[in-house]
Amino acid sequence: MADSSPSSSTVSRTALLLLRVLTFVFLLIALILIAVANQTNDQTGDKINFSDFYTYRYMISTIIIGFVYNLLQMAFSIFTVVSGNRVLSGDGGYLFDFFGDKMISYLLISGSAAGFGLTVELRRGEPSNSFTDKAHASASLLLIGFLFTAIASTFTSFALPKKPNN
Amino acid sequence: MADSSPSSSTVSRTALLLLRVLTFVFLLIALILIAVANQTNDQTGDKINFSDFYTYRYMISTIIIGFVYNLLQMAFSIFTVVSGNRVLSGDGGYLFDFFGDKMISYLLISGSAAGFGLTVELRRGEPSNSFTDKAHASASLLLIGFLFTAIASTFTSFALPKKPNN
Repeated sequence: MADSSPSSSTVSRTALLLLRVLTFVFLLIALILIAVANQTNDQTGDKINFSDFYTYRYMISTIIIGFVYNLLQMAFSIFTVVSGNRVLSGDGGYLFDFFGDKMISYLLISGSAAGFGLTVELRRGEPSNSFTDKAHASASLLLIGFLFTAIASTFTSFALPKKPNN
Repeated sequence: MADSSPSSSTVSRTALLLLRVLTFVFLLIALILIAVANQTNDQTGDKINFSDFYTYRYMISTIIIGFVYNLLQMAFSIFTVVSGNRVLSGDGGYLFDFFGDKMISYLLISGSAAGFGLTVELRRGEPSNSFTDKAHASASLLLIGFLFTAIASTFTSFALPKKPNN
């Protein structure tokens, strides 16, 4: 069996790198939005922010983990382009990409779904406020970041060697 | 390249079927729990159940979709065992399994995370009540159903043909 031609491999590597850069950018904006979201209650003067809710704290954790993972993957990609060699040689690199993308994509959608699940209920019957608007925008951007990672995960699934020990 | 030996293929098909049966059972119990969960407010006499929360309605939708998908996959597996042929021949079956497991596993974890995200906040500062206890148990069972589906999805990723048109 011939290896896939260098050109098709380069195309999918470029597409993967683009997906990771896009995920990185969306997660960065999502992180900033949820971190700065706050609201002062007009009656009581109490301030609320993300740290008052376990669910938003979980969401911010998933964003940070996804952000670090994409940073690492981008560094690996740049190393590969510059040196012409993969950081992890052999099947290790494919397996790392496959399991990394798979787990991070599950993590990102769980953070986004948890954030949406709470935000939708917090908003019901309440006038729109700055805190829930920012939380909603952050969960939406996290969902977009998830979609890019899910597409990357499909690519890295098809790139798997037919057998792990092949 | 020789095909994988029939025995190893049978082993992974049996493992897949087992994972689908387990997912099916956990989703069924999760569905019953969230459907019967209700609570009467002692002061006001108001009854609440899952349909009062958009988030729990979403969770129940993901459970039902996962349930139907696993029913279909189990029917396909039984057909395959009985007739010796796959329902979808060629690569179609592998691609259906791959994308099906991938999408359903994303759906299940999103339902579970949304359910947990809301339940954790509903429970805070409140005495434990029957409604949130059942919702929490349902989200937990849904999470276990997700884990089985994620393992099945890993199997069906490795079973992918090396190239879609191979």
